[in-house]
Amino acid sequence: MKKKRLMAPGPTPVPPKALLNMAAPIIHHRGPEFKGIIGELREGLKYLFQTTNDVLIFSSTGTGAMDGAVANTLSRGDRALVVNGGKFGERWMDICEAYGVEVEIVDVPWGEAVDPDVIRKVLDTDNSIKVVLTQACETSTGVVHPIKEVAKIVRDRDDTLIIVDAISALGALDIRTDEWGLDVVVAGSQKALMLPPGLAFASVSNKAWGFVERSNLSKYYFNFDKERKSISKNQTAYTSAVSLLVGLRESLKEIKEEGLDNIFARHDKMAEATRAAVTALGLQLYAPKSPSSAVTAILAPEGIDGSDVVKVMREKHGITIAGGQAQAKGKIFRIAHLGHVDQFDIITAIFALEMTLDELGYTIDMGKGIRAAVKVFQG
Amino acid sequence: MKKKRLMAPGPTPVPPKALLNMAAPIIHHRGPEFKGIIGELREGLKYLFQTTNDVLIFSSTGTGAMDGAVANTLSRGDRALVVNGGKFGERWMDICEAYGVEVEIVDVPWGEAVDPDVIRKVLDTDNSIKVVLTQACETSTGVVHPIKEVAKIVRDRDDTLIIVDAISALGALDIRTDEWGLDVVVAGSQKALMLPPGLAFASVSNKAWGFVERSNLSKYYFNFDKERKSISKNQTAYTSAVSLLVGLRESLKEIKEEGLDNIFARHDKMAEATRAAVTALGLQLYAPKSPSSAVTAILAPEGIDGSDVVKVMREKHGITIAGGQAQAKGKIFRIAHLGHVDQFDIITAIFALEMTLDELGYTIDMGKGIRAAVKVFQG
Repeated sequence: MKKKRLMAPGPTPVPPKALLNMAAPIIHHRGPEFKGIIGELREGLKYLFQTTNDVLIFSSTGTGAMDGAVANTLSRGDRALVVNGGKFGERWMDICEAYGVEVEIVDVPWGEAVDPDVIRKVLDTDNSIKVVLTQACETSTGVVHPIKEVAKIVRDRDDTLIIVDAISALGALDIRTDEWGLDVVVAGSQKALMLPPGLAFASVSNKAWGFVERSNLSKYYFNFDKERKSISKNQTAYTSAVSLLVGLRESLKEIKEEGLDNIFARHDKMAEATRAAVTALGLQLYAPKSPSSAVTAILAPEGIDGSDVVKVMREKHGITIAGGQAQAKGKIFRIAHLGHVDQFDIITAIFALEMTLDELGYTIDMGKGIRAAVKVFQG
Repeated sequence: MKKKRLMAPGPTPVPPKALLNMAAPIIHHRGPEFKGIIGELREGLKYLFQTTNDVLIFSSTGTGAMDGAVANTLSRGDRALVVNGGKFGERWMDICEAYGVEVEIVDVPWGEAVDPDVIRKVLDTDNSIKVVLTQACETSTGVVHPIKEVAKIVRDRDDTLIIVDAISALGALDIRTDEWGLDVVVAGSQKALMLPPGLAFASVSNKAWGFVERSNLSKYYFNFDKERKSISKNQTAYTSAVSLLVGLRESLKEIKEEGLDNIFARHDKMAEATRAAVTALGLQLYAPKSPSSAVTAILAPEGIDGSDVVKVMREKHGITIAGGQAQAKGKIFRIAHLGHVDQFDIITAIFALEMTLDELGYTIDMGKGIRAAVKVFQG
């Protein structure tokens, strides 16, 4: 027997009740029953996003809403500041390039967070920049960026927006959309929302709606204005991904019941325990200065390929974690503690990691990682 | 007790086994298990599309792949011929407009099929037209267009493509992608594929790939070239809608087991029985000359609003059918016989329709519709 466990930074495990609700017979997306469901989702999404604005719902994965965030707010030839500190920062650059948006790159070494002062300086010297594009949590490096501080720099500039890819952050880390003045916040279903991939979300501030009015980039499927009108009538502009939205109702209910503050505290604790465990094992964190509470990136020890850690974890112990991407390939492995995950899952992952490292020839004081994690949970 | 039954032209009922498969714990979209699944899907989709080319898979509803079909094959200022005979013909026009593609409209009265000769004439007099955009089945009117004949006109013109929205047709009607020379065929998961909404598909001919190379329209999420490279490695470019793809494996398996010819014959028979039944009840077909085997559109009798038929069917009998849209609103109602539907479902729908019409004051010879349908099924 080999039980399978998913501890990658998306997709994440789906609560059994949400899985079962999604297996219910499909209902029609234009009928009164479904409108009632969307009405519920609207309220739940506002709570999750910490906003009073409607959150737009797209049948796509998170990248679709990132695409839409650029296509709906900017115009050809506009300039964008992109925080590039990992694979998803690169994605913002690629999207801008696809739309003919000029990019001013703030390069951040992988494993580090952006320095808000650098952004301030760029904006001070170049007032043609229309948008700051960043991640909240850069999933590829396990870094959390100081979004609150960056937003503070942007919010008083009438001609500049801040657009945040919070795909792996929202619902795991405290992202205060309205209070911090985040203009567009993008999320996806398969992270802290505890659902399969296939839904994307975008909150849009009043300031951002002004940009939407002036935007001249081509868009059709990801049309913010059209979705805004539809959601106000408890609909989506095109056919909805009915089963996933029925699942979303359940996961938003569970989020409301646990409460955002408890959820954030749970994620912080799991991340702290994971860091304590791997440090006790003599491993080094890839992002020691600004680690995310959603995913921990760990440097593979000298002489061991990070991909082998992932492979042994999966093949021998049934646990799916993630390796490194691009320049971090082979150098790191990533353990997610994101969504429907608790302290027992963390202990499980650490136990499996200890065995895996031992199997790969890394000298280990077996049980030391677990003890360190337990101490955090009990402390 | 009120049992609910879905007989709208999408979403359609999902087979229980596919529903249950989609409720299985989520697997990682970059792991070896999922690559194996995509490998299976590639073969199943080729069979379904009747093509030897790879079929691209998108996490979106069908409209997303329609958007992509325009954005990936055309360039700004290109000219497109749009067959406009219903709500989805209008969608092609809207997409072209969003991308700055000029449109030559072939208007077809709602309820009628396009005359291929008209298309031939337009193409003969205007050799700047780069693409013919049409539906196979115009879901809003229940019409099937003569795609084979239209394709014949287009296929010998090196500078013109035919792009077919087969969202409500593929898997219900015989659409021979390669044999007829259809350059792009777009489909969605929630019709004859018997799945929830949330997946879209596009087959792309070699001729169309030449257009893709030259296209200069902006696209990011719906990038055909990127998806082509990914699918060749049994992946999708971005995160896949894992649960829906697991469901797709089951529905493609069921399609293969029944066999396309049997499936088409079943749909033809259900459509014939539905037409016979409503005609026997003294009702008139909205598309008598070219009715689709996927959905039957029926004129509401004098003095009765089609929306009321839909309402009573749903509220009193638990059966969801569809009303008319835009200019057909209130004038028609539509019964789908599409996907996971059999002769018993048709008899059920006709029985409920007889009672509904009676309740709405239409004089009816109760049982006459059922008898006519039974005769078709037994004939």
